[in-house]
Amino acid sequence: MKAAIIGITGYTGLELLRLMNKHPFLEIGGLYSHSYAEQNLDDVYFYLKNLVKDNQLIKEFDAKEIMADNDLVFFATPSGVSKDQAQIFLEANFPVIDLSGDYRLKGASEYEKWYKSSASHKDYLGKVNYQVADLAHLGTKSIKNSSYISNPGCYATATILALTPLVKEKLIDLSSIIVDGKSGLSGAGKKLTETSHYVTASENMTLYKVHEHQHIPEIIQYLKNWDNDLQALHFTTSLIPVKRGIFITAYAKVKKGVTESDLQQAFENIYAEKYFVRLQEQGRLPELRQVTASNFCDLGLSLNNDTGVVTVVAVIDNLVKGAAGQAIQNYNLWAGIDEKLGLEDIPLFP
Amino acid sequence: MKAAIIGITGYTGLELLRLMNKHPFLEIGGLYSHSYAEQNLDDVYFYLKNLVKDNQLIKEFDAKEIMADNDLVFFATPSGVSKDQAQIFLEANFPVIDLSGDYRLKGASEYEKWYKSSASHKDYLGKVNYQVADLAHLGTKSIKNSSYISNPGCYATATILALTPLVKEKLIDLSSIIVDGKSGLSGAGKKLTETSHYVTASENMTLYKVHEHQHIPEIIQYLKNWDNDLQALHFTTSLIPVKRGIFITAYAKVKKGVTESDLQQAFENIYAEKYFVRLQEQGRLPELRQVTASNFCDLGLSLNNDTGVVTVVAVIDNLVKGAAGQAIQNYNLWAGIDEKLGLEDIPLFP
Amino acid sequence: MKAAIIGITGYTGLELLRLMNKHPFLEIGGLYSHSYAEQNLDDVYFYLKNLVKDNQLIKEFDAKEIMADNDLVFFATPSGVSKDQAQIFLEANFPVIDLSGDYRLKGASEYEKWYKSSASHKDYLGKVNYQVADLAHLGTKSIKNSSYISNPGCYATATILALTPLVKEKLIDLSSIIVDGKSGLSGAGKKLTETSHYVTASENMTLYKVHEHQHIPEIIQYLKNWDNDLQALHFTTSLIPVKRGIFITAYAKVKKGVTESDLQQAFENIYAEKYFVRLQEQGRLPELRQVTASNFCDLGLSLNNDTGVVTVVAVIDNLVKGAAGQAIQNYNLWAGIDEKLGLEDIPLFP
Amino acid sequence: MKAAIIGITGYTGLELLRLMNKHPFLEIGGLYSHSYAEQNLDDVYFYLKNLVKDNQLIKEFDAKEIMADNDLVFFATPSGVSKDQAQIFLEANFPVIDLSGDYRLKGASEYEKWYKSSASHKDYLGKVNYQVADLAHLGTKSIKNSSYISNPGCYATATILALTPLVKEKLIDLSSIIVDGKSGLSGAGKKLTETSHYVTASENMTLYKVHEHQHIPEIIQYLKNWDNDLQALHFTTSLIPVKRGIFITAYAKVKKGVTESDLQQAFENIYAEKYFVRLQEQGRLPELRQVTASNFCDLGLSLNNDTGVVTVVAVIDNLVKGAAGQAIQNYNLWAGIDEKLGLEDIPLFP
Repeated sequence: MKAAIIGITGYTGLELLRLMNKHPFLEIGGLYSHSYAEQNLDDVYFYLKNLVKDNQLIKEFDAKEIMADNDLVFFATPSGVSKDQAQIFLEANFPVIDLSGDYRLKGASEYEKWYKSSASHKDYLGKVNYQVADLAHLGTKSIKNSSYISNPGCYATATILALTPLVKEKLIDLSSIIVDGKSGLSGAGKKLTETSHYVTASENMTLYKVHEHQHIPEIIQYLKNWDNDLQALHFTTSLIPVKRGIFITAYAKVKKGVTESDLQQAFENIYAEKYFVRLQEQGRLPELRQVTASNFCDLGLSLNNDTGVVTVVAVIDNLVKGAAGQAIQNYNLWAGIDEKLGLEDIPLFP
Repeated sequence: MKAAIIGITGYTGLELLRLMNKHPFLEIGGLYSHSYAEQNLDDVYFYLKNLVKDNQLIKEFDAKEIMADNDLVFFATPSGVSKDQAQIFLEANFPVIDLSGDYRLKGASEYEKWYKSSASHKDYLGKVNYQVADLAHLGTKSIKNSSYISNPGCYATATILALTPLVKEKLIDLSSIIVDGKSGLSGAGKKLTETSHYVTASENMTLYKVHEHQHIPEIIQYLKNWDNDLQALHFTTSLIPVKRGIFITAYAKVKKGVTESDLQQAFENIYAEKYFVRLQEQGRLPELRQVTASNFCDLGLSLNNDTGVVTVVAVIDNLVKGAAGQAIQNYNLWAGIDEKLGLEDIPLFP
Repeated sequence: MKAAIIGITGYTGLELLRLMNKHPFLEIGGLYSHSYAEQNLDDVYFYLKNLVKDNQLIKEFDAKEIMADNDLVFFATPSGVSKDQAQIFLEANFPVIDLSGDYRLKGASEYEKWYKSSASHKDYLGKVNYQVADLAHLGTKSIKNSSYISNPGCYATATILALTPLVKEKLIDLSSIIVDGKSGLSGAGKKLTETSHYVTASENMTLYKVHEHQHIPEIIQYLKNWDNDLQALHFTTSLIPVKRGIFITAYAKVKKGVTESDLQQAFENIYAEKYFVRLQEQGRLPELRQVTASNFCDLGLSLNNDTGVVTVVAVIDNLVKGAAGQAIQNYNLWAGIDEKLGLEDIPLFP
Repeated sequence: MKAAIIGITGYTGLELLRLMNKHPFLEIGGLYSHSYAEQNLDDVYFYLKNLVKDNQLIKEFDAKEIMADNDLVFFATPSGVSKDQAQIFLEANFPVIDLSGDYRLKGASEYEKWYKSSASHKDYLGKVNYQVADLAHLGTKSIKNSSYISNPGCYATATILALTPLVKEKLIDLSSIIVDGKSGLSGAGKKLTETSHYVTASENMTLYKVHEHQHIPEIIQYLKNWDNDLQALHFTTSLIPVKRGIFITAYAKVKKGVTESDLQQAFENIYAEKYFVRLQEQGRLPELRQVTASNFCDLGLSLNNDTGVVTVVAVIDNLVKGAAGQAIQNYNLWAGIDEKLGLEDIPLFP
């Protein structure tokens, strides 16, 4: 199948290209970007020399051309782009996997509150299928019959994978959940800001968007599948001086009588058969680098008997599992092929 | 006054030297280290050339010589050294500021539980004055009449400064406190381990010593001054790829009716007059680099009305406020001189 | 073909594993390491979970077992190991690709001078084929009939690729060559030293092994293929705070009348058809990250008409092109299959 | 004396403020910046809280006000600002120390060639005194009678200190000099560019402005004081992933018969009495971090007898010795006071 990428020159667009290059069935189709339109891809990015077709042109967005020349389209655009540009695909039921946040929230008013911008039309929002690839087997909504898949946010992916076993099996006090999230700089995108300047970011750590991160509502919306009593989530986001990676530390009070083994068992119940979610042995926690450049989410937990609080650590590569890798995995699930295709690389280690 | 440094070649020993060099009244006396004994300081550390006396010899520990030649001694040694070596100073009431953990816990059994090693004798432990310099004005125990001051740990300093206003003014549910601490690599000392190898630590983050960090009991012990109901503390420690710095994110449920202004006011009540604790405006949080190489602890807080949880961020330089700087400040307080002496540098920025 | 890896737990051993995993014809055979013998690979390295066979045991070296169970062996051991352990393979003409320095120098006395240790026997040294994979087409010695291939060092690879066109086409004054090499920390291996401690290496740069780097003689030995007048080489090596990568800046006076176009043409003559050597356009120089995690060597040059000096920049990933990647490429050449097999990944970017 | 800073919000302006804060005689006067005019300094930079006067206003440039309220002015502005704004001070013989490049080159046409912009008037250029503070004792031009001091560039400072002994004592072949310079990111200033984005700069190295760096002509101009035969200089500049620091590796062929001891002696002849230039023992080379946050330039050299090439390494902190520190030192020399005043800090180590 031939797939177009819209937003090829952003970090997630380039990562899609990197991963599609390894995929046995996905072929790179049209590449679209407003800022670099009419330039050759390997002139803009010399690192792609010899790896993509010579003279592969970056083009200005054109929905009809995309549908004529491709079987599928990935949106790797910043917030606010696909809500308009994707409507024509939604109307045509043309397959889309959208890596942006534009269609993640079911409610238009939720979108408007968190994204501070008007939402797409509710008819379109209603056609969208939000899929956490590694939880697709739990069957909240079948991926196969959708034509528009909304790919989760990077923080949301790691947080949902860390909390689902606890919430679903009702092992914790919902009002006690605290999520302390840390992200590398690529999570903030290519935009040039004082925050992303090397001199600012190196030897530094910053907490940002306190209580306002736009991934909060999609986490709550998803977890309500397992327990509708969940109303709010205390979730903070920080920048740490790494290029890639999300490190989630989630805390919650366990219910009376719950043991560490119970917790471990809850994770095993859900993830034992999942290739891309690797559960550490009881009491051991993952480190960030063990998933770099891979599609894995590694999880570990530890219960503190003095405080009754469980600590869950989840690590992912924000550009792979948190974006392009999960998008490919969602494609595989949607296409009914092995979810591992194109994603079997060993993490880059050291 | 002439001060000896025991453990001159560790990170905190060298940092003491750097800061004493700026102090108007403290003079560098004998320098002691087992591993580098009988070598000249500026032969071992060329970066000190022209800044310390030529031929300043590093010597093997000798308590009598130290007392004969100096007015004061700083222990900048790893855990397990001062519990034996300091006993002779304790008996002689010779002034000591101990930066290590050996005398921080009042109870021998507490020490043995957390440090996994036998404690000093309880008669000695009883003579020790644990002082959080920026809270000395609250007067739990007068610093001036002590001859043995135990300097708080780096994580403990930042955590205690972040939590004291909340605990003292009874604004939070004690059982809900979660502290997510992050430290730079110098916090783990000079020891060569796989964890501290550049290739491991760079582009990585790790959570370590889960529920077992030896700073937990000193935090609880101190906070019980303000509310004896505090029994346990959920406290995690992580390594982030920076050289210096501790970034504490503390969370707690506020009591019913408590507003963000109440919280901010509680911090102002305690810190408004404190030079070294800088409180951000309501709703703004500090970043790590704004205290690098300085003795400041910067604090900020934010209340999430959806979750009822307050987030407090505290940042310090672990080698200054978290070790050598606070030791100098404690010296200043003990000597009855201006606490700022020798510590008025502008942070290294950028 | 089944290949054993000796020294599986070093950086280059693990990198071989990572790359062999992508290879269509190479199968991972026995894995050997003295320090981790009798442990399961994915117990030692959780990041390999689900990616290697469960219970794949790391074993103690056993030459006979290796020959019985495998078709080929890679030595990814530190200096001083294969000179003894490989002799039995040499005698049996069992195929070996040796990533260490033990068999790179033809002369035993050269080895002893630079490695400060006794060399292997000259009969063995004589059977070895030193192969710079991207220059194999120039035919100094056919790779196909060798059973023992010595893989070049990381600095040597980048330097030889940067200098060969200049030396071979006699465009420069040989006595004027200066090579300023910089390496990331993984180049120094897993060994724990003060130099490799994060606190030492971060925000630092160091020049080390001045005039004594053991890659100097293999560069000279190789370049003498093109001009026997080359007697010495001024070559310095530095550590920069990155995990992976070698950045070579080579300088030389060009002969009278030589233009930048002549120089560019010389590089094109040699590399135009080479997939893994990518030549930048005239006057443009590569940056380090454009080859990360890939088998490319990117080259650029610039002639300064005021000084008559050409600057050539070569960048490689030291663990791929500088070690494991080139070893796989040499395997492909030796086996007579497409040199690209298993090595077609897009660099990790950003 | 009261000193104004123009360009207070750039890296070098802030560094001047940090250092002036330690100076016994220099008092901070007016602070000027176009981009932040009419804001309070510690509102813009919270890290300065408690360290500068409350309500210290940043002001719009006003030459008359500056002369009325201050005794001296520092220009810490980007290229192209002081060439216009400083003319009124030049006319009034009001003391200026200019950290920018605008008045470093004596010839207007040189300026125009390298800075690609029109120069100040030649009458003004003629009044300027370019001073390498650590070579002021060699007396190319007395600093005391000048009212306009041009402070050298960061690369130029380290390179001139590395090469002066060799050129002055005619120990090397002038046409063989190669300087390979590396700089941290703060050297490129606060400007937001793709190059300075954390994701670009981290785990990367880049060679930039090949043969075009604007510090080249000031190095040549200065070195011609010692040997007028010097016509050109091969000088490359690279970015390495550190915040602060310049690491210069300079190479040159020594003349026949010159020994390493001769070279070492030449350096001692010039620097033995200089506090801020620290010469390593023969054969030992400095590392970058040993001067961080200090005004030192550390030097080391090594002669390779096989190639006849001497390698000289010079390390400085680009914001201190390469900018603000040298400016304070030049002020001290100009004022006839101890050159060390305000600059005696121990480097930040680790």
